[in-house]
Amino acid sequence: MSTNGTTERVSCGMDLAFSSDLNSDLDQSLDLGFDFICVPIVHPRLTRDFFHEKVKNRVGPLSRSDFLLSSQDWTTLIVAKITPTLQLDSMNEIVRHNAEHSFNQEVALANHLGLPAIMVQLKNMNNINLARNVNAIAINSHFTLFWVKVPMTAPIVLCDDIFNGGLDLSTAENSNNDSWKWWNQLRILCNYNKKLILVLEITADLPSDAEITRWLGEPVKAIILSTKLFLTNRKGYPVLPRSHQLLLKKFFKLDVQLVLTGKNRHKSKGLSCYKLYLDHLFQQREMPDQISKFSKGYEDYLQCPLQPLMDNLQSQTYEIFEKDPVKYTSYQQAIYLALLDKVKEESKDKIVLTVMVLGAGRGPLVTAALKAAAEAKCLIKVYAVEKNPNAVVTLENLKSDFWGDKVTIVSCDMRFWEPKEKADIIISELLGSFGDNELSPECLDGAERFLKPKCISIPCSYTSYVAPLQSSKLWNEAKLCRESGKPVDSQFETPYVVRLHNSQLISDPQPLFTFDHPRRDVTGSNFIMMKQNLSNERYGELKFPVALDTVLHGFSGYFHCILYKNVSISIVPDTHTPGMFSWFPIYFPLKEPILLKKTDILTVHFWRLVNEKNVWYEWCTSTPQQTHIHNPKGRSYIIGL
Amino acid sequence: MSTNGTTERVSCGMDLAFSSDLNSDLDQSLDLGFDFICVPIVHPRLTRDFFHEKVKNRVGPLSRSDFLLSSQDWTTLIVAKITPTLQLDSMNEIVRHNAEHSFNQEVALANHLGLPAIMVQLKNMNNINLARNVNAIAINSHFTLFWVKVPMTAPIVLCDDIFNGGLDLSTAENSNNDSWKWWNQLRILCNYNKKLILVLEITADLPSDAEITRWLGEPVKAIILSTKLFLTNRKGYPVLPRSHQLLLKKFFKLDVQLVLTGKNRHKSKGLSCYKLYLDHLFQQREMPDQISKFSKGYEDYLQCPLQPLMDNLQSQTYEIFEKDPVKYTSYQQAIYLALLDKVKEESKDKIVLTVMVLGAGRGPLVTAALKAAAEAKCLIKVYAVEKNPNAVVTLENLKSDFWGDKVTIVSCDMRFWEPKEKADIIISELLGSFGDNELSPECLDGAERFLKPKCISIPCSYTSYVAPLQSSKLWNEAKLCRESGKPVDSQFETPYVVRLHNSQLISDPQPLFTFDHPRRDVTGSNFIMMKQNLSNERYGELKFPVALDTVLHGFSGYFHCILYKNVSISIVPDTHTPGMFSWFPIYFPLKEPILLKKTDILTVHFWRLVNEKNVWYEWCTSTPQQTHIHNPKGRSYIIGL
Repeated sequence: MSTNGTTERVSCGMDLAFSSDLNSDLDQSLDLGFDFICVPIVHPRLTRDFFHEKVKNRVGPLSRSDFLLSSQDWTTLIVAKITPTLQLDSMNEIVRHNAEHSFNQEVALANHLGLPAIMVQLKNMNNINLARNVNAIAINSHFTLFWVKVPMTAPIVLCDDIFNGGLDLSTAENSNNDSWKWWNQLRILCNYNKKLILVLEITADLPSDAEITRWLGEPVKAIILSTKLFLTNRKGYPVLPRSHQLLLKKFFKLDVQLVLTGKNRHKSKGLSCYKLYLDHLFQQREMPDQISKFSKGYEDYLQCPLQPLMDNLQSQTYEIFEKDPVKYTSYQQAIYLALLDKVKEESKDKIVLTVMVLGAGRGPLVTAALKAAAEAKCLIKVYAVEKNPNAVVTLENLKSDFWGDKVTIVSCDMRFWEPKEKADIIISELLGSFGDNELSPECLDGAERFLKPKCISIPCSYTSYVAPLQSSKLWNEAKLCRESGKPVDSQFETPYVVRLHNSQLISDPQPLFTFDHPRRDVTGSNFIMMKQNLSNERYGELKFPVALDTVLHGFSGYFHCILYKNVSISIVPDTHTPGMFSWFPIYFPLKEPILLKKTDILTVHFWRLVNEKNVWYEWCTSTPQQTHIHNPKGRSYIIGL
Repeated sequence: MSTNGTTERVSCGMDLAFSSDLNSDLDQSLDLGFDFICVPIVHPRLTRDFFHEKVKNRVGPLSRSDFLLSSQDWTTLIVAKITPTLQLDSMNEIVRHNAEHSFNQEVALANHLGLPAIMVQLKNMNNINLARNVNAIAINSHFTLFWVKVPMTAPIVLCDDIFNGGLDLSTAENSNNDSWKWWNQLRILCNYNKKLILVLEITADLPSDAEITRWLGEPVKAIILSTKLFLTNRKGYPVLPRSHQLLLKKFFKLDVQLVLTGKNRHKSKGLSCYKLYLDHLFQQREMPDQISKFSKGYEDYLQCPLQPLMDNLQSQTYEIFEKDPVKYTSYQQAIYLALLDKVKEESKDKIVLTVMVLGAGRGPLVTAALKAAAEAKCLIKVYAVEKNPNAVVTLENLKSDFWGDKVTIVSCDMRFWEPKEKADIIISELLGSFGDNELSPECLDGAERFLKPKCISIPCSYTSYVAPLQSSKLWNEAKLCRESGKPVDSQFETPYVVRLHNSQLISDPQPLFTFDHPRRDVTGSNFIMMKQNLSNERYGELKFPVALDTVLHGFSGYFHCILYKNVSISIVPDTHTPGMFSWFPIYFPLKEPILLKKTDILTVHFWRLVNEKNVWYEWCTSTPQQTHIHNPKGRSYIIGL
C-alpha cells in the first residue's frame, strides 16, 4: 500500500462527542488503530450551574472518578474537551460568572488527572474574557497545554452570498469572517504563551493558498478531520478529495497529529478504514530532500552566528563545512574559469600564476585550486593564508603529505600579512548566512594591498537579501534567549542563524547590501579617495507589499554570491544552490510583532555600521508601524574585527 | 506692569543665526535681558567636506577655541545649533556620509564644551537616518540633551489650497503635513529616550485646539518665537496677537523656556522690549489653584497606591488627609441629611441612632458625625471602629479629652468585629483614587452582618472612571520603575497614583465599575444568593472615539462618589469637587504605546478580580490594536485583603 515501502503510521486521535463508558470507548478506539481520544471532561448531563441553588448543590460527583483509568492512560491517551456551550464572553453577568466557574472547574479536573492537553474551541471573535481565563491558567508553569480548536475557514464565509444579501463578507471589515484573527487575538492576549497550541479543524471548502500558507506559520499541533469530508472510492472505501490530500501533505511537514471526528459514514468497512487511509496518505507524504535530512533536528533552533574572525573555529566545525557536496565543486569551477581567463593558451606552460587562498582553514579551497589548475593545465603557485594556528597544523601536514612545493603555508591574518609578491587570483570563503556578516568585506579590504592590478577575486560579488517573516515559533524562541548580563530585550536585538521551518515569508526576498571585490574603484587616482573615505557602512530601505492580513515577527536574511562569471552560490529561496547545506538563513527579530493588513506597504530599514573594533547591524520598520531602532551602537550584538 | 504684583521673569534665550564674535554677542544678549543664546556650533564658513580632499585637509580650526568662554559660561549660557543644511537622510551616499561625519563632529565638539543642549531641526518626515545618529549618541548616558526643534504647523499646511490644486492636504495620508508625526517618529525610533526634548517653533497660523492639546502632552522644553509674530501696539511696542498670548499661557504651565529668534522689527525700542513684553505675559499667566499649590512638586511623580488594609498608615499620612478643606465638610453635610431622614422631627429627643464609623483613623469622621448630630439636633451613639492600633491611641485620647461617652472606640478590623447592636448609619472613607482600589467593597461587605434593615451607608455608591491618556512623560517614568525581584515589565503592569501634568486626555472619561452600599440585593430571599454567588469581581469594556492622530500611553483613572443623596465627592475632571486635594488620579500604563488614528475607536477592557487573599486589576485594549492582558493573576501588582 505504501509507495515508499514504509509502514509508518500517523498519530491519529478519535474525537468523541461524549462517552458514557470511558474504559470501553478507549479500548474500542485503540483497537480500531487510533492513538488517543478526545472526550468531554464533564458529561453534559453532569454540568452544573453555580448561581441557581438547586443544581449547584446537586448530590453526586461532577464527573468520572480518576480510578477509572490508570495514571499512565490518563496522561497519554486522553485529551479533555471543555464543555463547548460555556459562554465566557456573555454580556450577561450571571451567565458569564457561571461559565467562568465551570471552565475553571473543568480545567482544574483535567489538570488533576494529568491529561496531556485541554481543548478549547473558538467560534467567533469574542474571546477576550475566555482569553483572560486561559491566560491566568497558562502562566502557571505546572499546568497542562491548551489545544485551541479553530476552524480553518470561518463558518460565515461558507454561507451563500445570496443569503448574505449579496455582500461579499469575506472582504468586509468583519473580523468574525477570518478565523485566523480569532486565533491571533487569543494568542496576543495571552502574550504568545507557548502553552497555547493550535488545532485546526479542516472545513469542506478550503481557503486560498495564501491563507493556508499563513496557517503554516502558526504552531499547528493537530488537524481535525470530519468523516463528512471523506468521499467514497470505487471499492467503497473512504478517501479525501484531492485538495484535502494536498493540504494534509503540507501540514505533515510540521509533524502534526490528526484527530478524526464524526460518525462512521462507511459502515460496511468500519471506522478503522479511515485510519488506514490516513496512514496511507502519511506514507505518501513528500520525503525530505538532502538539505532537510542534513538539518534534521535543527528546525527552528536558534544559533548564534559564527564569529570566525574573533574566535577560532573548532575542528568539528571545519569538518561539517568541508562535507558540503556542492560548495567546493562550485569554487573549483569558478577557479577553473578564472585561470583560463588569466593565461592565454600559448603561454600556459610558461607563466606561473600566483593564487592566494585567504582563510584556508583546513585546506579545501587549496585542493580545489590545485584540481582546477590541473584541469585547466595551468601552472600555479598557491599561498594558503590562515590566521587560526590550529588549522595551520592541518595545512602543514597536507603540504608535507600531498601538496609539496606548489603550496606555501602562511600562518598570519590576511589583514596584516606582508607578502613578497602580489596575487593574480585571490580565493576566499568568508561569507556568513547574511553574506557580509562574517566580515568578508573588512578581511578582503585588508588584502587589497597585495593584489596585482587586474587581480580576480573569487568570490567577486555578494549581496544580502531580506524578507519579512511570519513565525510565532521563532519569535517565541528568541523571547526565551534572555541572557543575564546583557541589556534588557537584547534577545530581540540579536540575529540568529536558524533552519526555518514553522514559518512563512510574507513577501519575496529583496536585495539589500552588495559588496564587490576587488573594489571596482581601486584603480589609479581614485585609490586614495576610496581608502580614506568609502567605508563598508551601508544603509538600505526596502518596501514589501503585503497580500493578506498577517503578523510580522521579524526578517529572514540570505545571501547570493557570484564566485566568478556565471558560477554562483546562493541561499536565497528562489535561487538556492541545490544540495548546498553549509548555510542556514539568518533571523532578525523585532521586539514586538507587528500586525500587517492586506494592501499595507511594509518599509524596513537596515544599517551596516563599522567602527575601529566592531561591525554591527541596526534595523527598524517605518510603515505601517514605526518601531524603535534595534541594536543601537551594537549594544546587544556585535561582530568583532 | 504685573497684575499679580510679581516681578518674575521668564527664562528666555536669544537665537543667533551666526556669531562672528561669541564673547560680545553673548554679553550683548545678556545685557538685553536674555538668559542664554542659541548659536551655530560651527560657523558656515568653517564647515568642511569629508570626501573632497581639498576641503577636508584645510588648515585651521573647525570652530572657535574653548578658551573663548569660561567653563561656567559654556555649560550654562550656550545652546549649540547643528548646521541646518546637513542632509543625513539624503539618498546620495556621499552627501549622506558627509553629513553624518559633520553631524558627529559638531555633536562631539558641543559635548566637549559641556554645553547644556544641542539643537537639531526636523523639516519633514525623512529623519530615519538622522534618528539613528541621534540615538547612537543619546544612549550614551554622559552625553548632553538634544533639543529637537519642530514647527508647530508644518509649512505645507500653510500653503494656499489653490496652489496645491485645491486638495485638502491636511487630511491626506501625507505625514509631511503633520509636524507632530515628525517628532513622534523620531522619538519612537529613539525608543522614547528622555534626552530628546521638544522645542516648538511657533508659527503665525496656529493649529486647531485639539492639535495644541496634543503638543501639551509632549515633553516641551522651550518655545521658539520669531520677531515676525509680533504686532506693534499704539505706543510702538511689540505685542503678540491674542491667540498667541493664549497659547503661551497654556505652555507656561509646563514651565517652558522661551527663545526669541529673528531681527529686531521695532528698532526704535531695542530688542529688550521683546523680552520685557514676554516677562509681562509670564507675570500674567494663570496662577495655580489651591490643588495645584498643594501638589506642587508632585507633578508627574509616580507613587505606589496606598494599601491601608495590608499596611498601617503613618501618622503623617493621616495628617495630610485630615487637612483636606472640603472632604469632611461634605461628609458632615451627608451625615446631616441622613440623620434627618432617619428620625422624624417629633421623635428627635427620644431615639438614639447608632452610627458606626468604619475605619475611623484618627477620628475626623467621628468629629464630623458629632457636629452633624448637633446641627440636626439628633441623639447619636458613635462606634469608632479602627484596625490600626496606632491610630486607636489617638482615638482613645480624643475620647477622654473631648468625646466622652457618646463615642465607643473599637480596636478591631470591621470584617471580624462582632458588635452587640446593629447600625442605623455606617460611615466610611475607604476610597482610593480609582474608587474601589483600596478595597472598600470588601471591607463594607464584611460589615453587612451588623446593619439594620434600612441602614444608610455613607458613601452609598461610587463609580470608577477611565480615560485614555497621552503622556510620553508618564510612560517614560513608568519605564524607569523597574524593580529587581519583580517579573520583567512589571513596571508596565502596575497602576500609579500621580498628579497628572504633562499629559492630555485623548477622550472624555467614562464610568467603569460601580459599587452600591448596602448592597441593594441584600433584602429578603435574595440574601443568600447574593452572599454566595455575587462577587465583587467586575468586567467592563469601554469604547472611546479618537478625534486626532495621536499616541496612547495608558489610562488615567478617577472616581465619582455619592456620599448621600445630592452630596457627592469626585475627582473626575468634569465634576471634580473644588478644592479637594485628598486624591490624585491613578495611571494604568500600557507596555507599548499605541498609535491611534483619527476616527479609530479605542476599545479597552478592564477586570477587577478577587481571590481569597488579594484583589487586582487586569487590562488590555482590543481595537485598533490588540495588546496582551496586563497583570494576569496579579503577577505584578495586587492589593492585599
